[in-house]
Amino acid sequence: MKKGYAYERELLHKLWEIGFAAVRTPASGVMSYPCPDIIAGNGKTYLAIEVKMRKSLPIYIPKDKVESLRRFAEVFGAKPLIALKVKGLGWRFFTLDMLDESGSNYRIDENKFYRGLDFDELRGLKQLRLSD
Amino acid sequence: MKKGYAYERELLHKLWEIGFAAVRTPASGVMSYPCPDIIAGNGKTYLAIEVKMRKSLPIYIPKDKVESLRRFAEVFGAKPLIALKVKGLGWRFFTLDMLDESGSNYRIDENKFYRGLDFDELRGLKQLRLSD
Repeated sequence: MKKGYAYERELLHKLWEIGFAAVRTPASGVMSYPCPDIIAGNGKTYLAIEVKMRKSLPIYIPKDKVESLRRFAEVFGAKPLIALKVKGLGWRFFTLDMLDESGSNYRIDENKFYRGLDFDELRGLKQLRLSD
Repeated sequence: MKKGYAYERELLHKLWEIGFAAVRTPASGVMSYPCPDIIAGNGKTYLAIEVKMRKSLPIYIPKDKVESLRRFAEVFGAKPLIALKVKGLGWRFFTLDMLDESGSNYRIDENKFYRGLDFDELRGLKQLRLSD
């Protein structure tokens, strides 16, 4: 079982604060199915979230990890999202089409980080940004 | 953290088999938010499931547990369901309006058990049964 990371719990709190019912999931190992870190819904928008934390940027996220998230989200019926917390900079959220390829990874650097969605945009996600 | 109960894993497998992306959730304790045992979605129908297993019936389920499930499901945007496995009898699923009150509990006896939804009905849940 995965430990309860403080930054995942922090994100969970914030999701409830902005009107989403959100749950963390246990790490896999037992089951072989794809599984995001957090699943959230507010009755209109459903989110499958991979949660990352870094002290500095850029961050590289393996493409196969992202593909697994995309597949889960497709079957479940959710928007796949990367949630990234950077120490001192707070949280930003990225839809998969916002990610830049870099070899076998996706890459988020500081410029890209600031173009990520913030919590206000997350709340309005379905309406504002996504049709994927 | 909650151990991975075999019957929960079995239900998870079956949900994937019938086209739902499903995840188990860790037991609470860390967080004070309501949280069902399993969340599943197939792009049209979203399920918040409380999972129970018994060797024999009747089963009594505390009303406050059911209310917590109902609240979570309402915010998330899911159908709240009780999944009940009885040894030798297999699985049946109950929407909350199918449950009989019994004091501070809901009660499912053997007669009621056989009127529960089976996996085929679960797959067609949105279309066949629920408008709640």
